[in-house]
Amino acid sequence: MERYVVGVDLGGTKIYTALADLRGRILAEARVPTGAAGGPEAVMERIAETVRRVLGEVGGAAPAAVGIGSPGMPDPATGAVYSSPNLGWDGVPLKKRMEEILGAPVLVDNDANLAALGEYSFGAGQGARHMAYVTVSTGIGGGLILDGRIYRGAGGGAGEIGHMVLDPDGPLCGCGRRGCLEALASGTAMAARARELVAAGRGKAILGEAGDRAGDITAVSVARAAAAGDAEAREIIFRAGECLGMGLANLINLVNPDRLVIGGGALGAGEPLWAGMERELSARALRPALDRVRVVMASLNGRSGLIGAVALAVNRELGSGNSF
Amino acid sequence: MERYVVGVDLGGTKIYTALADLRGRILAEARVPTGAAGGPEAVMERIAETVRRVLGEVGGAAPAAVGIGSPGMPDPATGAVYSSPNLGWDGVPLKKRMEEILGAPVLVDNDANLAALGEYSFGAGQGARHMAYVTVSTGIGGGLILDGRIYRGAGGGAGEIGHMVLDPDGPLCGCGRRGCLEALASGTAMAARARELVAAGRGKAILGEAGDRAGDITAVSVARAAAAGDAEAREIIFRAGECLGMGLANLINLVNPDRLVIGGGALGAGEPLWAGMERELSARALRPALDRVRVVMASLNGRSGLIGAVALAVNRELGSGNSF
Repeated sequence: MERYVVGVDLGGTKIYTALADLRGRILAEARVPTGAAGGPEAVMERIAETVRRVLGEVGGAAPAAVGIGSPGMPDPATGAVYSSPNLGWDGVPLKKRMEEILGAPVLVDNDANLAALGEYSFGAGQGARHMAYVTVSTGIGGGLILDGRIYRGAGGGAGEIGHMVLDPDGPLCGCGRRGCLEALASGTAMAARARELVAAGRGKAILGEAGDRAGDITAVSVARAAAAGDAEAREIIFRAGECLGMGLANLINLVNPDRLVIGGGALGAGEPLWAGMERELSARALRPALDRVRVVMASLNGRSGLIGAVALAVNRELGSGNSF
Repeated sequence: MERYVVGVDLGGTKIYTALADLRGRILAEARVPTGAAGGPEAVMERIAETVRRVLGEVGGAAPAAVGIGSPGMPDPATGAVYSSPNLGWDGVPLKKRMEEILGAPVLVDNDANLAALGEYSFGAGQGARHMAYVTVSTGIGGGLILDGRIYRGAGGGAGEIGHMVLDPDGPLCGCGRRGCLEALASGTAMAARARELVAAGRGKAILGEAGDRAGDITAVSVARAAAAGDAEAREIIFRAGECLGMGLANLINLVNPDRLVIGGGALGAGEPLWAGMERELSARALRPALDRVRVVMASLNGRSGLIGAVALAVNRELGSGNSF
């Protein structure tokens, strides 16, 4: 009898669920709003609904395992979710409750770890031994696959590159500290730099992309202006890329990976970001470490986390050890 | 029959060799000058002499294994030593030649990895699961023990925290880059800051500790002036400590260890260094990561590397996997 697994990418705004076979092939998908405001129990019931819906595609078979990627800090030992402002959760027993509701083994990990595992298992990280994954979007996150396994560290927080300090007196970060990578190189950071420029009476092209409303400037406004050839927008993106390159150099020097996979929506800012990143990466990384690493773009697009949740469940079945 | 191992700490100026039993108890020691100027073959013959000398203490028994810690970048696969300016070596087949000379299994690793292993096995890292070791002396180095094993990365360079960029426009580092942790927080960095101060007509107390010769100012001059209550010297050390704390915060955020062991001669700079370090570490590290880690001083003093070389050999015999 064919066995199936289910992967769930639980986000602050949507729940994205996929049915797959043990080779990781996706057979059915479902996507619903998270509705986090309704509280954890309602969210977990909604996850269960999507799991049952995709299983309906194969006659309602019981899943061999369900992998769930969650924002915040899932406890590696218990699968309870802590410190997730996106969901408003702190101490929700996600694994335990989902196992009660579904009657199947449930594995929980943090979304960045699972995006890393997804790229490693079925994407741009295939064939690597020590892989670092960094995602650049509104925030900056990351995950590490060391010796072929998710490396979680003591509390499940390993790979948290977004709050690496690169400029002790730099711009304020959402975390309350100054000069974190996320405050320098994320989409949010690019938008903030653009708004500062506009407030100083410059950045006309960027402002135009935001319908002449400074408050509406986002990273997309900057990317569009840059794509249309605006030098100020390109400079903002290039500078963000340089900061990203510095952070990645620190990561490479410390972790010495053979593959570095970069994903996330901010890559849509295009060539100036990559150019700035490559420049500082080459300048700052130690030569022996740089010579050993291949730097590539993520290949699963926005689905790294979903595919990683599938991979987590598959690995449990196939015994490769990436489970709790 | 009792079995013995030998550990060798190969440094740029001295070779330090110890005989131990499989419980890591040191039974005999020898120390000779490295004489690196005489070339690799002469150095390797000298290592062999010290190994034979300590084995003489137990009647010249054959060692079960010999562990050697080397500066530079030993290749994890072959045990050949690359990129060691201290020895002037680049591509010396240390493991292969020492096995030929000694007729016993030889294991080679980098000195920082072995200092980490020494503290983990027999020092301040005992009982940890994920341990980071950072040594602050004339330079800054480090090693990682993850899941109870030396984590070397793709090319043996993992844990290289000294060239983490913390201030892109900061002081020039020995590596040619700017604003590396080593250029901000090492003993060499403290001495450089003190010389700048003296060049600007200040730092009288520090200058006095160096016999009024600005060119003779070292980290020890700064430490002595600080110990005598000089505010300028204390400020230099405190600032170095702050930079160290920032670097350690980045390390903790990325690796999420449960133990952080700090060693090296620069700890002799005393309380202002530790105070600056703790201040920035608390301010910059992510709370969940900080809550999980215990920060302690190395307990094997200058012998972490030697004891780590012993541990490498012991582990090979006992099969804990920290060998090539």
